[in-house]
Amino acid sequence: MNAEIIAVGSEMLTPDRVDTNSLYLTGELNKLGVEVVSKSIVGDDRDRLAEAVARALRSSPVLILSGGLGPTEDDVTREAVAQALDRKLVFDAAIGVALERRFAQLKRKMAENNRRQAFVIEGADVLPNDRGTAPGQWLEESGSVVMLLPGPPYELRAMFERQCRPRLARIVPPLAIRTCEMRATGITESELDQLIAPVYKKYDNPATTILASDGTIQIHLRARCSTVAEADRLLAELAGPIQLLLGDRMYSANGDPLEVVVGELLVKAHATLAVAESCTGGMLGERITSAAGSSRYFLGGFVTYQNEMKVELLGVSPETLERFGPVSAECAAAMAMGAARRTGAAYGVSITGAAGPDPVAAPGGQLLPVGTVYIGIAGPEGVRTAHRQFPGDRKRIRIFSTTQALDLLRRLMLGKP
Amino acid sequence: MNAEIIAVGSEMLTPDRVDTNSLYLTGELNKLGVEVVSKSIVGDDRDRLAEAVARALRSSPVLILSGGLGPTEDDVTREAVAQALDRKLVFDAAIGVALERRFAQLKRKMAENNRRQAFVIEGADVLPNDRGTAPGQWLEESGSVVMLLPGPPYELRAMFERQCRPRLARIVPPLAIRTCEMRATGITESELDQLIAPVYKKYDNPATTILASDGTIQIHLRARCSTVAEADRLLAELAGPIQLLLGDRMYSANGDPLEVVVGELLVKAHATLAVAESCTGGMLGERITSAAGSSRYFLGGFVTYQNEMKVELLGVSPETLERFGPVSAECAAAMAMGAARRTGAAYGVSITGAAGPDPVAAPGGQLLPVGTVYIGIAGPEGVRTAHRQFPGDRKRIRIFSTTQALDLLRRLMLGKP
Repeated sequence: MNAEIIAVGSEMLTPDRVDTNSLYLTGELNKLGVEVVSKSIVGDDRDRLAEAVARALRSSPVLILSGGLGPTEDDVTREAVAQALDRKLVFDAAIGVALERRFAQLKRKMAENNRRQAFVIEGADVLPNDRGTAPGQWLEESGSVVMLLPGPPYELRAMFERQCRPRLARIVPPLAIRTCEMRATGITESELDQLIAPVYKKYDNPATTILASDGTIQIHLRARCSTVAEADRLLAELAGPIQLLLGDRMYSANGDPLEVVVGELLVKAHATLAVAESCTGGMLGERITSAAGSSRYFLGGFVTYQNEMKVELLGVSPETLERFGPVSAECAAAMAMGAARRTGAAYGVSITGAAGPDPVAAPGGQLLPVGTVYIGIAGPEGVRTAHRQFPGDRKRIRIFSTTQALDLLRRLMLGKP
Repeated sequence: MNAEIIAVGSEMLTPDRVDTNSLYLTGELNKLGVEVVSKSIVGDDRDRLAEAVARALRSSPVLILSGGLGPTEDDVTREAVAQALDRKLVFDAAIGVALERRFAQLKRKMAENNRRQAFVIEGADVLPNDRGTAPGQWLEESGSVVMLLPGPPYELRAMFERQCRPRLARIVPPLAIRTCEMRATGITESELDQLIAPVYKKYDNPATTILASDGTIQIHLRARCSTVAEADRLLAELAGPIQLLLGDRMYSANGDPLEVVVGELLVKAHATLAVAESCTGGMLGERITSAAGSSRYFLGGFVTYQNEMKVELLGVSPETLERFGPVSAECAAAMAMGAARRTGAAYGVSITGAAGPDPVAAPGGQLLPVGTVYIGIAGPEGVRTAHRQFPGDRKRIRIFSTTQALDLLRRLMLGKP
């Protein structure tokens, strides 16, 4: 079964706004086995919207509209849908009373405009909104379903979940949908695709989606079958070979982020962690502590942005800095050891590099290009360092650096450095 | 002049992908004085796409398609546009030779499929692509313009900038577009809107957009006039009263982020900064160092996630922790002073709080709710603290905490605490 989504609102036709309601709705529709075949954004223009509604209904049996249900003249969704379906708008006294009561409770006078929200398309079911003033509407028209939902995500989600999903589930043929999310790093998106495409291209079901962000690649599998057991069997049939091909580049088989995976390894090893950061300025600590429960293993960290801080806070020797420079394997090693020693942590992880915009001068006089990064890992078996050259701007280099540092720690703890 | 944008690709109809090309394109079109009146996403379905193209051309004189120009069977944009315009696809020998040369340079054999990319819609201008294999196309049809651009943003942006913008500028009536971006904090989006709506509602031009994220509110003004002087005059006419109403809640009149504004104040005062973070785990340092040139004023920081680290690294007294607890004004003050003292910085900023998911027990036995945050600022004139109660989840609480800490430092340095 196919669906279309139309987001209504001129503000979503500016360079700064994305429509996120459709992502939520797509996820929910997919869970019911409904595929979204087209999405659009239409401004606050009644005729244009009416035309879009009429067109969508000719090609898809499910249409969801979000937004444009407010009280102002700009809010044209009710009128546009009524026009497209050639139905009347009728005043619903019950909604009118509820609106007046809502304003009375807030001790505010209801503006005349708000009465607009009490108009309902002939034959529509009213979908109550306990999180705002705009009620939704559910319509059926010659085998098709149209939903009018409010634009604020907080209102839309509650209304969809409580009112629309149960109604849709009664209409849509039952389908078991199961998903699996794997995550990998240390490989580019295109390399990964080349590696696993021969496997996943054999399957239309499960469907495979590959997403890259922050130096991590996500592989989403989605199986749609008549039973859960069959969907799980298909997922395993495809995920197994993919996992074999990815090997230890795959760090998560359940969608957990890298910092959570590393945290679990530390908890299992009863080990603690401290960090020392230069160019990332705190981002590594921030990522580690974004995992709830990180206080079980994370002791703390040092942001040593200046050379003197590396000496004073971490005990990096002035000779190391002078001879090798702050962006060097030697400095990374000393920083990692200093972080572990000064906190008493089992592991110390350090990052030092040139995040840009300018290259960094090395002691020999040559310039280290932007993107040069050294990572140090001090642990019970000594200290290791790694050198990386990352592409991109300051932000990307910093994100990639922290991902690499976490992954190196993961590999070390797994005995696969 | 109006435009529509169609993004082509089934992957953008999943719950995980947003189309960002259209945001870039909207920004560029707006700069030329072209308004986007509708955007849509269509999957890899030739007939559906052909229908969308035909419909868009009936209502808008400018149509941009992104994606679907690759070499595989899924890439249907060329065929669909040809079908919508009832034109033939013709093989372009020059593109064929260029493709073969490109593969030869990469020492790879060109797959037969790649020949698909050498087909051009009859009458189209070929738009060369020096960043990928898919050339773009520029078509004119009875007063309308259609552009076919590749999906990867890196390719699309270069092609639009070099090939499409100059051509469009020749067609579009000249218009001076000037923008102004203000930023404020310490006020909610709805409070701000209530405050300034009476001013900006008087103007259709400049257009006003208000965006909220990370505890910051952005106010975008965009004026479109026949001359730059007139546009600047209109901008000033609207921005002036808005700035008066916002007062010192406005921290930037030119779109600079808070960490840049604070950095400029520090540079001006020849002052240095150090931080001490508990629940934010490094995020404050990360934000400060996201500004290029932050090494001029930022010395470093301490992530003291555990109580013992607050004592050892920052010199917080065990009595303070015992009597008031780590989430307290007293601890925040001691952390801020410790950060300044141990680094020699002029200012020390600290954050300690309960970011969740669980509340934190205070020494008296009562539970501090999730979102309780204390901020400390130590400076030449002593130490101040602030208590905040933030709503939302762990991520939001951490972001709001760092925004508040930066804003408190800004206010202190401006003498407006």
